[in-house]
Amino acid sequence: MNIAVAQSGGPTCAINASLLGVVNEAAKSDKIETVYGSVNGILGIINNELVNLSEEFEREDAALLRQTPSTVLGSCRFKLPSKEENCELYENIVKRFEEYNIGAFFYIGGNDSMDTTAKLSAYMKETGKDIKIIGIPKTIDNDLCVTDHTPGFGSAAKYLVTTLSEIARDSMVYSKPCVTVIEVMGRNAGWLAASACALKANGGCVPHLIYLPECEFSTDKFINDINEQLKNHTSVIAVVSEGVDAGAGEDANYKVDAFGHGKAASVGKYLEKVVADRIGCKVRSIELNVMQRCSSHLCSLTDINEAEEIGAAGVKAMLNGETGKMMCFKRISDEPYRIAIEAADASLVANHEKLFPKEWINSQENNVKPEALKYFLPLILGEAEIKTQNGIPVHFKAYNK
Amino acid sequence: MNIAVAQSGGPTCAINASLLGVVNEAAKSDKIETVYGSVNGILGIINNELVNLSEEFEREDAALLRQTPSTVLGSCRFKLPSKEENCELYENIVKRFEEYNIGAFFYIGGNDSMDTTAKLSAYMKETGKDIKIIGIPKTIDNDLCVTDHTPGFGSAAKYLVTTLSEIARDSMVYSKPCVTVIEVMGRNAGWLAASACALKANGGCVPHLIYLPECEFSTDKFINDINEQLKNHTSVIAVVSEGVDAGAGEDANYKVDAFGHGKAASVGKYLEKVVADRIGCKVRSIELNVMQRCSSHLCSLTDINEAEEIGAAGVKAMLNGETGKMMCFKRISDEPYRIAIEAADASLVANHEKLFPKEWINSQENNVKPEALKYFLPLILGEAEIKTQNGIPVHFKAYNK
Repeated sequence: MNIAVAQSGGPTCAINASLLGVVNEAAKSDKIETVYGSVNGILGIINNELVNLSEEFEREDAALLRQTPSTVLGSCRFKLPSKEENCELYENIVKRFEEYNIGAFFYIGGNDSMDTTAKLSAYMKETGKDIKIIGIPKTIDNDLCVTDHTPGFGSAAKYLVTTLSEIARDSMVYSKPCVTVIEVMGRNAGWLAASACALKANGGCVPHLIYLPECEFSTDKFINDINEQLKNHTSVIAVVSEGVDAGAGEDANYKVDAFGHGKAASVGKYLEKVVADRIGCKVRSIELNVMQRCSSHLCSLTDINEAEEIGAAGVKAMLNGETGKMMCFKRISDEPYRIAIEAADASLVANHEKLFPKEWINSQENNVKPEALKYFLPLILGEAEIKTQNGIPVHFKAYNK
Repeated sequence: MNIAVAQSGGPTCAINASLLGVVNEAAKSDKIETVYGSVNGILGIINNELVNLSEEFEREDAALLRQTPSTVLGSCRFKLPSKEENCELYENIVKRFEEYNIGAFFYIGGNDSMDTTAKLSAYMKETGKDIKIIGIPKTIDNDLCVTDHTPGFGSAAKYLVTTLSEIARDSMVYSKPCVTVIEVMGRNAGWLAASACALKANGGCVPHLIYLPECEFSTDKFINDINEQLKNHTSVIAVVSEGVDAGAGEDANYKVDAFGHGKAASVGKYLEKVVADRIGCKVRSIELNVMQRCSSHLCSLTDINEAEEIGAAGVKAMLNGETGKMMCFKRISDEPYRIAIEAADASLVANHEKLFPKEWINSQENNVKPEALKYFLPLILGEAEIKTQNGIPVHFKAYNK
């Protein structure tokens, strides 16, 4: 048989390593002939845009996938309708699978991809088709249920912590009080912002403050917190999740942009203005933007290795007869760090999200407790050796347009 | 005799390497006993905040200075008044030098520091004091005259080009037209934005557009340029210097912030809005912010080595009797890349700035000509091995508060 693999959702540094894991593991099996890559997620199956990855990866330097951010097969934001809504779509997908003799489909993605995994596998079972569907997790948000953590998160956290350490140095250069507000991705779950606490493993007290969407936010309390920190520190660094609801109540008017249009000003820019108005010291806000999810030059070796392993584990699980599963990390111990990879029902992951645990948030709800460090630290360990040309990291080719 | 060294102006990745060069070269000379570090630039001399660096660097892992961003001695933005304005200040500075038996002062900084170097050395000559003053250049803006380039610039350019390559991958993930505007530091001189062209050495056509403060900017022309690029590319990347005057003429109203206050919205945010309004496709602006000047984890090995060498060369020049000079790079050849270090009058550098050459800008004034590549490429070459602890780069201690 042949198999197909696709990538979906927002970019990470690790999603191409999982692709490599799938293709390399498939090559080891005499049951699998060709691995097809589906361009732009499941849409490549629907639109018949498939690439022969078995051939491609022999020709190209496939190891570069480990240092290539984003998705070499492109991506999509596509919520598969239920079969009641669009049965024809399901029939067409099966037809395509049969056309290419595809006996298994691997979907590397987040929440929506696990929804697709659950729906498609249920359809195959119901219609008696022996086509297996396996989900491989990825998201920098780390908000997927069941799994200890998600591939892509460790690299995003390593980027954040490293950059934070450098910004902290930059911000203390003059001897005047100053406040730096760093806005971090995470709409509903604060895992990434919380991971900033890992910097404390190397001493110091940066970040002085961390605000997560899991807690209620009060601008008054924020200003009090900053003033408290300014008593002891010339340069105060606050990490704020983009999902923090700073616009509640009296401040709701920040939710228009610089031009009076509906698009929200970022929470970082808003808090910068609040500090300027109410404290009056030097203040800067920094939006780490997409660099959080695509800075492969600074990826976590642990993350990239695990991403490749979990892709390979998906192929093994399928060969063992699994379907409708998402591959998961189970943490066996923090020190030494050990994990196992297991398969869980994709339906337990689809349409759920795992928030940052309340028990790891301090009582003032403005920082993370030291206990969280042992969770985060193993995930950012290790540096990959990055191949460069002309002093610039080299990336694998992209198949989408 | 003893010597003193200080750091001034905005942070870079290379300014601590120059400090290391000064201290290590001084240690080789039997004419120099102790190197004092002046905390927060020349203010440390004025306020008597000096650190014995000879002792400190023996105790600490001084090699970490090569991977520590910003200034371990702190910095200042202090324009030395003329001696006519404040003669007492000059007398106090001389008194401090004499108190510590300081026979030479090394000022690592930009334009203002070279002004201080020129003024202080002239004063010493006039008053017959044998105290030598030497300037060591640094700035990510690369806008100092006489020198081929400035320490700190190569690392900033390497950060920009690497990050640009990753953002380019991130932005092409979906198959819908999108525009990314990347705002780069450089108020008057566009060197850093122009260096983005180095990415083309590895193929591809990112960045599709580059706008420099050296050229007149027209929003209409910008929109035309973007539309032209969208005919051939799904994802268009435009690099824009922060100093581009996009607010001229009819668009001047962008120069208020999200809250109607006087502080300017960034040019990136402004152009994001213009694209959204007039083209209507997906658009994102990214401000690379202070990460451009402090991302030491991604420094250029060439830059760091040269920064250390030019610090050492300053000590050698002083021992040869030079004063009132700034140390400069002279490029001997592009391929193979070879430079010499020379001394030039600091007064030729102070209060001047070197703009990006017009002959390297294309006729449409929306990109940089291929000829500029040979200038930029050697400066970003080489990766430093970065010491980490817990997966996070380690930094040298900081002496300012």
